[in-house]
This record gives sequence, structure tokens and C-alpha cells, in this order.
Amino acid sequence: MLYIGIDLGATSAKVGVVDESGRILCKSSCKTGIERGFEPIAADMAETCRRVVRESGHTLEEIVAVGVGIPGEQNRKTGLVAFCNNLGWVDVPLMERLQTALGIPVYVDNDANVAALAESAFGASKDVSTSILVTLGTGIGGGIVQNRRLHTGAHGVGGEIGHMVVAMDGEDCNCGHRGCWEKYASATALIRMGRELMRAKPGCALASRLEGDESRVDAKAVLDLAKEGDADCLKIFNTYVHYLCIGLGNLVNVYDPDMFVLGGGVAHAGAFLLDAVRAALGNYVYCPSLSFARVELATLGNDAGIIGAAMLGRKD
Amino acid sequence: MLYIGIDLGATSAKVGVVDESGRILCKSSCKTGIERGFEPIAADMAETCRRVVRESGHTLEEIVAVGVGIPGEQNRKTGLVAFCNNLGWVDVPLMERLQTALGIPVYVDNDANVAALAESAFGASKDVSTSILVTLGTGIGGGIVQNRRLHTGAHGVGGEIGHMVVAMDGEDCNCGHRGCWEKYASATALIRMGRELMRAKPGCALASRLEGDESRVDAKAVLDLAKEGDADCLKIFNTYVHYLCIGLGNLVNVYDPDMFVLGGGVAHAGAFLLDAVRAALGNYVYCPSLSFARVELATLGNDAGIIGAAMLGRKD
Repeated sequence: MLYIGIDLGATSAKVGVVDESGRILCKSSCKTGIERGFEPIAADMAETCRRVVRESGHTLEEIVAVGVGIPGEQNRKTGLVAFCNNLGWVDVPLMERLQTALGIPVYVDNDANVAALAESAFGASKDVSTSILVTLGTGIGGGIVQNRRLHTGAHGVGGEIGHMVVAMDGEDCNCGHRGCWEKYASATALIRMGRELMRAKPGCALASRLEGDESRVDAKAVLDLAKEGDADCLKIFNTYVHYLCIGLGNLVNVYDPDMFVLGGGVAHAGAFLLDAVRAALGNYVYCPSLSFARVELATLGNDAGIIGAAMLGRKD
Repeated sequence: MLYIGIDLGATSAKVGVVDESGRILCKSSCKTGIERGFEPIAADMAETCRRVVRESGHTLEEIVAVGVGIPGEQNRKTGLVAFCNNLGWVDVPLMERLQTALGIPVYVDNDANVAALAESAFGASKDVSTSILVTLGTGIGGGIVQNRRLHTGAHGVGGEIGHMVVAMDGEDCNCGHRGCWEKYASATALIRMGRELMRAKPGCALASRLEGDESRVDAKAVLDLAKEGDADCLKIFNTYVHYLCIGLGNLVNVYDPDMFVLGGGVAHAGAFLLDAVRAALGNYVYCPSLSFARVELATLGNDAGIIGAAMLGRKD
């Protein structure tokens, strides 16, 4: 069985032909070009699918289904993409256009959901039945997998773990609400704390390493110095782990998965982050004397988007 | 098919014989007497089961299973009650003792979970497949029902929605953590806000109605005055609805049930509470343009504990 997976982003749409075992046989991409609006983007995506299938040495007739991970929300009821903020889309018929152009069933879901599905099928959480992927990037994305299927809820609006409020009446979030988890535990939050440090303490190691240039602060710079034992960055790191564990603890208390899988830029800190989260998480769950979720790092990296999208069309 | 349901509390254990349709054929209770410790309590519970079955005109042989709702947590791994804070129990073999005494399979689960199961089987949420019961009492209890079964998670520690942190580093909670939802949206929180009002404004309508006696503040007093249009209590009520909707919004964003069922003392405010929550909830969900959970009031009242416990042993 062969599938097409599409990882749609604001910059490019990555397209791959994926087999039943999660192997990408062939992949390519096209520029998204969001300024062109929806129709030409959908047409380019379909054309890229045809090209990648051709390059893989297969034919469209061999493809069982096409899956698309979008940086937004699909409306289950209408079949339209409800919104993709970064692409400026509201209620666009992506599923219908691709289906018409390719003559193959098309499935669309949120990109973080899709990545969770990939990790669950072939990655870090492949041996457990329920897992939550937590991608620590610009925001916090997430996907809940239960018994190898996405749990997106009764109306398809669940799994938005980054927008769980952990600090009511706290910091303004892009979503229009306040105090969302991602305002405290995303890579962006880590960067903000790094910049605040540089402003408060211009002689600190971070400022010195980045030559006082706040615009150069990224998660890696802060995490690297924390690893090296710099007291200021270690303090930021500990605060960050506190914020991260508050949200993970909430997910244990409410949902109780077998495993958390940490992905996204911050997870590149590897064992340094993992060890800290594992050591702290027990302090944030309601019943620390009972078993609770293991924490692991994502293993599929950037390919999770294509692989997981492809798996949207896989039948049990 | 007949079942026994036991609703164990710190004051009494209520025991009922329940049929397949959720009807309580006969019920009785025994004093818990927590000062006696575990063994005599378990023995009295078993004896009350025998008595109630006899009074129902049936025999133990006709009982398929016994279910117990406990004010604490059952350890799935060991089969022991991990803890019941109000009863002072830690790791006690309740399941084993009752099973030995009665010769019938025994199931034990958290009391709020059990009530959620009852509402889902025969109450407010009987026509939907996923629902979350939110009991607004001394704390906030909760239970998640998915496809007519309890979702208690991979380790049985999920569904503790009252201990979802919504105000990190906020008010101290009995559980040892800070900023738990129940510190803001339980009946206890409403009472605290009422007392604060009386202290800050001794001439307010609440103080006048309760003759300045803070100890007489209960949820009903505050809610009644809010219903009557008293500006001070209405302000408390609106704050309370804000806190309540933050948690409900989180549960939509993470879990996305078909329905929330509101129970417990605060829910006695009825349509006044329901209308306010329904009007506000859209302001707290990530995707208000998409459908999200309906909100209803619990319908089974105090019997939910016995009925739901009985249903723990029901096979599909």
C-alpha cells in the first residue's frame, strides 16, 4: 500500500510517497507562495503530488490516499479548512480540490496531530497505546493518539494543548486568550526569557556570547549556556522546566497518557531537557505515588509531518 | 441482571441494589465510623450489602457484581485503594475484602468517576458518547466518559480535572500544588469570595441577609442574591463563571467532549448558572467558530453515586 503525505507550511509544501512501513520512497516540495491565495497553491500541491509519484517510479493508481497536515484547523462538518492563520485561509475547500485533481481520497488534519500520529506509528511512542506529542517550537503544538488513532475529540477541536490556560489573566496569546501554556513553555518563551536576562544584566554570559545582540537569542543559545553551567541561563532553564511540567502535569491529571513525546526546537536539547523533565514531573501530578506517563524525545524529526499525513488515510 | 452499588463517604456508606436499567430496587446505609479504621468498615459494608439484597427480595446469587465509588484513588496495578484522604486510608485491600466476604466480583473507582458513569448511562449525557461530569462542590470532582466507558487513562490517574492548574504559582491547594482549578471554581471558592465581600463591605446585602455572620455564607446565599440582582453578588457570580469557563475551555481545547454535565452544590443554581456558562464558554475555547461541547445540568442527584458504582460491573 502506498500513500501520499503532504506537510503544508507557510513557506513550502513538502510532499512524499510513503509506504505501509512509514518509509518515504521519494519526496519533493513546492513553494507555498501564500500571497497568491488558495487556488494556485492547491493546484501546485496537486501537481507536486503527480510529480513525486512519477519520480518514485509508481503511478497515481497505486496510491490509496492522500493526507495533508495543515498549520490550522479542518472543519469536520463542512470538510473545509476552517482556518490557517499563517496562510490567511478561512473556510477553503482544500480536501475537495485535491480530491478532484487527483481522483484519490484526501484527508486533512492539523500538522501537530499528524506528527503525533507519525511518532505513534513509527517513532518514539510506537510501543504504547496512548501518547501525547508536545512540540516545543514557536508555539506549543500537540496531538493525542489513543489506540493508534488521533483523539481530536467529539467535534475535532481537541488536542490544542498549547492553548490550555495555565496562568489565568496572564500573558496575551495570539489566539486572543490570556495565559496559554505556549506563552510560558514554547521556544518563544525561552527566547523571551533570554532577552529579558540580557536587558536586566548586560554583562551576563548570554549577552557576551551574542555580542549584546538581542535579536540573536534563540532557544539553543540559552540551552547551550545552561548546559555549560552558566547560573543565569540555568535559572531560566529551571523556570522553563517548571512551566513545561505544569502543563504536562495537567495532561496527566486530566488525560493520563502512557507517554509524552517531546519534539520541536527545544527538544534538541536532548537528554539535558529530558532528564530535567523526568526528575521534576512527579512534583506536578496529583497522585505521584501511582504510576504516570513516561517522557521521551521525538525520533522522526522533520519527516514526521509527511509520514503522519500519509498515515491519515491508512485503514486499521 | 442485578448489581450492588456502594457510595462510600466519610460519614456513611450508601448501598443499593440496582437493575440493568439503573433503577435502585432497594437501598440502605451504614455509618462509616472512620475512627475505627479499615477492617470493621469493610466488614460493615459487606454486611450492609447482604442486608440490602435480602430486603430487596433477591439473593446474593443473583448479583452479578459489586461496585464501590470511593472518595480517593484505586491503584489499578495493586488492586488496593491507594488513598482516601478523608478516611485516612492508604493502600487498603477493599476490593479483596468485599470479594472474599461476598463471593462476587468487586470493582472500585473514584466517586466522581462513578457519578459520571451514572449520568452517562441514565442521566443528562445518556444520548452522547463522550461527556465530562464536573461536580462543583467542596472541591471539583470529575469523570470522563468515552463511548460509555470511563476514561481514567493509561495508569488510572486521569479525570482529576479539579487539579488542573489554571493559575500557576496561585493559591495553595490541599493536594500540595498551587493554582488548581478547584481553588477558583468550587463551591468553596464561591463561599470564600462571599466572605471576602462581607469583610470588605460590611453593609452589603449578603452581610445583611446573614446578619454579619461569615460562617453562614454558603454557595446558595451568594447565588440567591446574584439571582435577585444584587450587584455585589452578581460581580462574584460573574467572576466565578469566568473561573469555571477557563477550566471548561481547557477541557474543550484538550479533550473536546460532546457534553459537560454540571453537578454538585453550585449546580443547584440551575438555569441561572447554565445560561451564564453557555453564554460565556465560546469566549474560552480555541476555535469558537467550530462546534464545541454542550453544557447541561446533572439529573440523577445523590443517587448517581450508587447507580454509577453499580454500573462499574456492567459488561457491554
